[in-house]
Amino acid sequence: MSHFDIPAGFRFAGLASGIKKSGKLDLALICSDQPAATAGVFTQNKVYAAPLQVTKPRIAGGVCQAVLINSGNANACTGEAGLQVAQQTSQLVAKQLNIDEELVALASTGVIGVQLPIIPFEQNMDKLVDALAEDRALVVAEAIMTTDAYSKVASARFSDGEKAYNILGLAKGAGMIHPNMATMLGFVLTDAAIDAQFLDSALRQAVKKSFNSITVDGDTSTNDTVLLLANGAAGGKKIEPGSEAAQAFVQHLERVLLDLAKMIVRDGEGATKLVEIKVQGAESEDAARTAAKSVATSSLVKTAFFGEDANWGRIISAVGYSGIDVDQNKIDIFFNQVAVTKDGLSTGPELEAEATEVLKLPEFTVTVELNQGDTCSSYYTSDLGYEYIKINADYRT
Amino acid sequence: MSHFDIPAGFRFAGLASGIKKSGKLDLALICSDQPAATAGVFTQNKVYAAPLQVTKPRIAGGVCQAVLINSGNANACTGEAGLQVAQQTSQLVAKQLNIDEELVALASTGVIGVQLPIIPFEQNMDKLVDALAEDRALVVAEAIMTTDAYSKVASARFSDGEKAYNILGLAKGAGMIHPNMATMLGFVLTDAAIDAQFLDSALRQAVKKSFNSITVDGDTSTNDTVLLLANGAAGGKKIEPGSEAAQAFVQHLERVLLDLAKMIVRDGEGATKLVEIKVQGAESEDAARTAAKSVATSSLVKTAFFGEDANWGRIISAVGYSGIDVDQNKIDIFFNQVAVTKDGLSTGPELEAEATEVLKLPEFTVTVELNQGDTCSSYYTSDLGYEYIKINADYRT
Repeated sequence: MSHFDIPAGFRFAGLASGIKKSGKLDLALICSDQPAATAGVFTQNKVYAAPLQVTKPRIAGGVCQAVLINSGNANACTGEAGLQVAQQTSQLVAKQLNIDEELVALASTGVIGVQLPIIPFEQNMDKLVDALAEDRALVVAEAIMTTDAYSKVASARFSDGEKAYNILGLAKGAGMIHPNMATMLGFVLTDAAIDAQFLDSALRQAVKKSFNSITVDGDTSTNDTVLLLANGAAGGKKIEPGSEAAQAFVQHLERVLLDLAKMIVRDGEGATKLVEIKVQGAESEDAARTAAKSVATSSLVKTAFFGEDANWGRIISAVGYSGIDVDQNKIDIFFNQVAVTKDGLSTGPELEAEATEVLKLPEFTVTVELNQGDTCSSYYTSDLGYEYIKINADYRT
Repeated sequence: MSHFDIPAGFRFAGLASGIKKSGKLDLALICSDQPAATAGVFTQNKVYAAPLQVTKPRIAGGVCQAVLINSGNANACTGEAGLQVAQQTSQLVAKQLNIDEELVALASTGVIGVQLPIIPFEQNMDKLVDALAEDRALVVAEAIMTTDAYSKVASARFSDGEKAYNILGLAKGAGMIHPNMATMLGFVLTDAAIDAQFLDSALRQAVKKSFNSITVDGDTSTNDTVLLLANGAAGGKKIEPGSEAAQAFVQHLERVLLDLAKMIVRDGEGATKLVEIKVQGAESEDAARTAAKSVATSSLVKTAFFGEDANWGRIISAVGYSGIDVDQNKIDIFFNQVAVTKDGLSTGPELEAEATEVLKLPEFTVTVELNQGDTCSSYYTSDLGYEYIKINADYRT
């Protein structure tokens, strides 16, 4: 575990409880020695799962001490029965840890519309809590996976000039994958002392540029959850908003979340490429973002990436129908440093051939220069190929 | 041609001018004996082609007599040079027909970013005009095609109680197909006498429920154009808004456009299914439409259709993230008459098996009942399968 920066005062555990028929790890617990200031962001999907119905109001209180996660079943579209099971799991872990139930957060990921069984929780809660240890974060990262090809962990270390603090992020997700499986979970822990209110604004800002700027297929799940816990266990002074330490915290938090977000895109179903769509020279950040998202979610653009085709026509068209105001005669488009479009016109066959070479890389940047202002925004996307269809349409064969 | 209702006073011609290297038909002309009241709707894409730059202001005047169309080249992203060529083609046809240039409308479809050559127009204008005849509408339908598998023609006949009128629609389109090829063109002709203002509102209403309610891959092109010409050549009384004759006109116009729109979806790249997504019980038509579009454009929903999987979880999730206000506990979902979801919960394995049988049909309806109001809206979509990827990513191999 020495290559990740583990924050002090957190313990981790994971095991196979039988929710997954495969027998793989499917139950995880993150616990802070003391209650931690907490912020959370959740899916905007109005159809949201039972664990979020329990967790959202609790996180609004700004404090959390334990996060219980299961994979293999999203406990979504399960009605009253599902909500009751969620509440029971919360009671079980609170009792075992001897903490207030209001300090427990829940997350689930997996099949939608199938009732979550309570027995795996009843039969394994003591074992799970007994297994809590400081060096088991990677077990949690594995236990929260559904069809991820690999676990997603990122960390950073920052200083306030006197003390060093760690930030650890654990995530799962790869687009809305396989039948009825929910998408993106992120758990970010730090041993710095930070108020819940500042945590909340820092998280929202960092999520905007990371988890909310990625797309594998454009769908947002019934279960997306990102939680940020700060327990102050490193012992340093509270980090105040506006201070240099706060800046360092936010910068490193953004980097950890962006690293995780990119891992999610790279692991996107059937993805062979990670592409940054960077729109710059926009009149506003909203405009830049809207245009970037439009390009990043275009099926035609994504299939062109898969086909390694430097197809700027589809890109400029996606910018054009995004809804923002643009002057097509001012638009320049680049694949990495290669300009394929200048003032809305082709730059010719030689540069297009150079751009085709860029398309062969597993990662590259498409820059769309609008020449209308000075704000920019990036969206990260994957290509769209046969594997996506196979995974999402043929999984039963 | 006897199976289509051809409006009086229109003539048609089409030929191969050499724009298409394949030697296929690529130049078409529709001409009214007299100037016709005209309405048009055009792509909302802010990156729009030279022919639209010429045509839009002219159609705003409400009169048109000739429509010149080429396929094989969209004359889009061609800058000042492209605009000049468009204007030259307009001058050529106006001269050959001996009509005012302002009465000429242009449309192009094909490759984006490649200059449109003027020579094919110069060399063929006299032949094209000479070939104009009342029974050549199907030649036009073929000459405007790009990668359409078949030409798209629909017609209707309606009466004002005294006289019968014909409506003929010619269209092309199948999603934004092949590299840089533009999408949807529609030309609708009638021999009824109708003012341009009423034509405009009738067209907008009819397009909303047809061409603007279809999606193959969600992209809207640089060239989409629909023109509606009414030349009064049947000789009857002018049809006034609010009259029964006006109602009959609008009804039949909507049906013609919907027939064409469905043909476009069925011809969608790689499409094996035409699916109507009908959202009902919504609080407003906008809400119904937003939800229907969200479901219709979801890659996960479309791949499920391809895989013949009655996957309601993806459908309810797409409704949930559409942005409208919904109560997940009130949502019912049907595949044709088979209910798979009631009050946001699964109706069980037997009904899911019945629904799977529905998925095997080439056409079916998914009904989402929101139980929140009494408005409904439909969107038409195709499935998403391997062929779409092949066509859009592998076309060069």
